[in-house]
Amino acid sequence: MLELALIKLGGSLITDKNIPYTARTEIMQQLVGEINLLKKQNPSLNLIIGNGAGSFGHQSAHKYQTIAGFNSDGEKLGFCLVHQDVLDLNLLLAKFFLKAGLPAVSLPPLTMVATQHKKLVKTDFSVIENSLQAGLIPLVFGDVVLDKAIGGTIISTDTLLAQLAQYFHLHKSYQVRLINAGNYPGVYDQSGQVLPYITPSNYAQIKYAIGQSESVDVTGGMAGKVEEFLAVAHLGIDCWIIDGNIPGNLTKAVLGQQTIGTVIKASLD
Amino acid sequence: MLELALIKLGGSLITDKNIPYTARTEIMQQLVGEINLLKKQNPSLNLIIGNGAGSFGHQSAHKYQTIAGFNSDGEKLGFCLVHQDVLDLNLLLAKFFLKAGLPAVSLPPLTMVATQHKKLVKTDFSVIENSLQAGLIPLVFGDVVLDKAIGGTIISTDTLLAQLAQYFHLHKSYQVRLINAGNYPGVYDQSGQVLPYITPSNYAQIKYAIGQSESVDVTGGMAGKVEEFLAVAHLGIDCWIIDGNIPGNLTKAVLGQQTIGTVIKASLD
Repeated sequence: MLELALIKLGGSLITDKNIPYTARTEIMQQLVGEINLLKKQNPSLNLIIGNGAGSFGHQSAHKYQTIAGFNSDGEKLGFCLVHQDVLDLNLLLAKFFLKAGLPAVSLPPLTMVATQHKKLVKTDFSVIENSLQAGLIPLVFGDVVLDKAIGGTIISTDTLLAQLAQYFHLHKSYQVRLINAGNYPGVYDQSGQVLPYITPSNYAQIKYAIGQSESVDVTGGMAGKVEEFLAVAHLGIDCWIIDGNIPGNLTKAVLGQQTIGTVIKASLD
Repeated sequence: MLELALIKLGGSLITDKNIPYTARTEIMQQLVGEINLLKKQNPSLNLIIGNGAGSFGHQSAHKYQTIAGFNSDGEKLGFCLVHQDVLDLNLLLAKFFLKAGLPAVSLPPLTMVATQHKKLVKTDFSVIENSLQAGLIPLVFGDVVLDKAIGGTIISTDTLLAQLAQYFHLHKSYQVRLINAGNYPGVYDQSGQVLPYITPSNYAQIKYAIGQSESVDVTGGMAGKVEEFLAVAHLGIDCWIIDGNIPGNLTKAVLGQQTIGTVIKASLD
């Protein structure tokens, strides 16, 4: 069975969220170094990388309220500015992959996904699938998308990777795992401790605490992320939420080894 | 009937072909200025812009012989480097559009086109069509594409725009014109004069002269460009080959006014 790891490199991890348009290039380099080693030691492992927008995408997205659609000329321009900003960051990240000799290929989700009233109505992941089959590493990202009802909106990296996880698991028989590397050690409980596991059965009890915790991600926050991943976990795909700053953490999660962080899974079997 | 102008901004026009990775930003600004004025005076005019790769794409493309496919790890990396280089140039161009307030959206052809032994076997232009309908200006470019037989290859901007011209003319009932703005005054005859017209009936006599003339474009040269455009002209779509350096030339061609250059059309009616 083909193995596929979907790796999210969070916007708060690879950019400085407090300074507009500022990348954390040393972290990018460290993460790409880990991925390079992983790929060298596991040549048959398929990888899809998705990166958050961090302090690149959120400036124009906020100014023009791009997630709510576009109508005026200014809002249309805003949509295009957000696309440009997220592509800029993605290409910067891509350069680290290419410099390490990894065949990473930037593929804007705008070309694959369409929505209607913010709900996905079209997904075409054939170019991602064909890239994997050709031995390349698709690089995707949270992006603007065209919306049949409201002009356009934004699809988060989390939603996109959750869709991709389902697609490759259900339709393409890949053995899929999903790793979210962020700028936080995992999902906190009410007392500020990292929850080692979240399953559908304990989620109801901890949901309130997550909802109250500090939001670490602009599109949806931690609660949104956890719910996105629970839907994926339901299919039998384990999802890791780990601190990407700690060297070796990403490697361990990809290899399914014990790491500090939160694992979201269907049940504690 | 919806009007659509497909505008090719040649690689030799917007980059310095003699110095790797060097854009002619003053020309980019001038051309975007013309397009901005055109769009302001003709708000209902639909535009698709395609740019050549010039001294950005051809370095890695030549080094890794990307047009001939990929097999080794080095060639796969080369494919990704070419994609990165052409995206870099396209994003640089996009910034001039956005700065002028034009809602231009970069859409990599890699995500829309697939080939087999370098022949197109799949085209999906829905994202370009939806972008036009949303009032945006799609920006495309010569790009790498995945090839079912040889891994990957390159699709030239000329081929892509010819495909788009046919698609919007035949299937979508747009009134289409195609303008190629290059770093040359048109197509030369044997004596070095610019041919005002090329039609299927005079092409046989002048073909030899074009074949012998200095190649102005790496992917296919001028003869390839003319043949690509003759196939489009056959459908009733007039194609202009003009010098993009001369202020006002692009505007005149888009408006169908007399310009210095070569018009390729089905017949001299």
